[in-house]
Amino acid sequence: MTAIGIDLGGTKIMAALVDDGRVVDKAKKSTPRTGGPDDVLDAIAAVVAKVDPDGLADSIGVGVPGPVPPGSGVLPVAANLPGWTHDVDVAAGLRRRCGDRPVVVDNDVNVGTLAEHRLGAGRGVDNLIGVFMGTGVGAGVVLDGRLRRGPRGLAGELGHTYVNFREFADTGVGRGELEDYAGRRMMETRARARHSAGEETALVDLVGAGRMKSSTWQTASEMADPVARSILDDAADALAAALASAIALVDIELIVLGGGMAGRLGEPFRADLESRLDERVFADTTAPVRAAALGEMAGAIGASLLVEDAT
Amino acid sequence: MTAIGIDLGGTKIMAALVDDGRVVDKAKKSTPRTGGPDDVLDAIAAVVAKVDPDGLADSIGVGVPGPVPPGSGVLPVAANLPGWTHDVDVAAGLRRRCGDRPVVVDNDVNVGTLAEHRLGAGRGVDNLIGVFMGTGVGAGVVLDGRLRRGPRGLAGELGHTYVNFREFADTGVGRGELEDYAGRRMMETRARARHSAGEETALVDLVGAGRMKSSTWQTASEMADPVARSILDDAADALAAALASAIALVDIELIVLGGGMAGRLGEPFRADLESRLDERVFADTTAPVRAAALGEMAGAIGASLLVEDAT
Repeated sequence: MTAIGIDLGGTKIMAALVDDGRVVDKAKKSTPRTGGPDDVLDAIAAVVAKVDPDGLADSIGVGVPGPVPPGSGVLPVAANLPGWTHDVDVAAGLRRRCGDRPVVVDNDVNVGTLAEHRLGAGRGVDNLIGVFMGTGVGAGVVLDGRLRRGPRGLAGELGHTYVNFREFADTGVGRGELEDYAGRRMMETRARARHSAGEETALVDLVGAGRMKSSTWQTASEMADPVARSILDDAADALAAALASAIALVDIELIVLGGGMAGRLGEPFRADLESRLDERVFADTTAPVRAAALGEMAGAIGASLLVEDAT
Repeated sequence: MTAIGIDLGGTKIMAALVDDGRVVDKAKKSTPRTGGPDDVLDAIAAVVAKVDPDGLADSIGVGVPGPVPPGSGVLPVAANLPGWTHDVDVAAGLRRRCGDRPVVVDNDVNVGTLAEHRLGAGRGVDNLIGVFMGTGVGAGVVLDGRLRRGPRGLAGELGHTYVNFREFADTGVGRGELEDYAGRRMMETRARARHSAGEETALVDLVGAGRMKSSTWQTASEMADPVARSILDDAADALAAALASAIALVDIELIVLGGGMAGRLGEPFRADLESRLDERVFADTTAPVRAAALGEMAGAIGASLLVEDAT
């Protein structure tokens, strides 16, 4: 069975033509920055035509930047897509544009996790969490070999689990959620607050008033910058606490660590996280932490698996 | 189908004869305090004979105080049972003693949750958490209508999820786990520490050097004792954070609140917890909090459902 997988992001649309777990072709295109959902759907259809010009693929799966009510094919409001201010039936819109083939739509982090589970670092492990560090922290949960979506399609919001219930009232640095410590956006907020309070840091020297990217954190960490190191230590510790909690709640055997930030921080961060997790887990229930294996194609590859997964 | 359910606790063994979801007879007996596993198994067999003298029930389910590797029928080390220092095959031991009927064994909190899900406060809701407040905090997780046990039988350890990752190093008051704030044992430790530091509290006036029971907390709270109220506020807040995290991770629709402590604290605590949870949940994903409906028979009733649930 040949399937097309689409990863719809805020900046680009990536496509993979996947045949029996093997990527046979790829394509990409910028995501429209103006217009509305119809323009985005037209752009997706164009990438589909590029990766499969003769329309031979049996089905199309799409990973989208937001939660999808299970089985609906609908992406509600999406902040990083143009004019996406209401429910849009992505599945119906693409079926119309792409020769009426089966279309299944799911959250981008879910499809990334599905890809790592079936074909990547999580192959052969039936209870795992895929955690993706970037601007925020996203995650997908696989239980007994199936993606856990939940009755409202909201499962996997690890970034919104609480690691510090005492900070709930402190609006300056979030409300004690994992993402407030381990998401790049809030990590930058913390770094700038410390800099404003008089601490020297390479993070600010490197970017000035510009945005701190994953590479900025990597460089500052490699320079042993104390502020960067301290914030990264907190990120690893908060992540270890959230993952230990997830293991205690649903019994998880493996953590797959991905996302732009984790990719940049590399092996030292993975090893640090794994050892902190070992210390925190209840009884002897630890789970190893493995680096994600499929890189930036994980989303498109995972999306290609959606139709088969749904049937 | 008629089934016997056994709730094996550290102080008593309770039995229910359940016919099609209806309790038709009950029995109980003290748990042996000396001897070993064989004495405990003999005592269970005696309660089975008491509740079903003619051996008419089709099957026997047992809830035990500890995690049971899925499908094993084995209870490993149990601190509150006499001489229970190694793996004991409870299922085989009871089959031998009780006419070779099918026996299924599971964790006591799991069976309590199963009972509330099938016949109690959680009836008709397929994604819920049963949380039981007592000396510690136990929980059972139902996903898509099935008890989540996990590959190692360790799911449901909500009491060991982290609500404050900053307190990990502070051994005096635990390591930031939910149970350190919302379990009666650690709540007493906190109260005594504040009393030793010079704060007056009715909690100590009521029991002196004796153990603070659930009724002690109830009385002190009703007297508006500031130390009791502050520790109970923390308990509700920590519990709200842990439950909001669980909802974010696996998408839960209902919380069933039970256990001796929750029973004593009653409606004010339930309502307080529910409103704190409302404030904390991600997006609009809240779950109501309902008081457990089956009281102290929940364990035995749930155990009676195990054999049917396993087939």
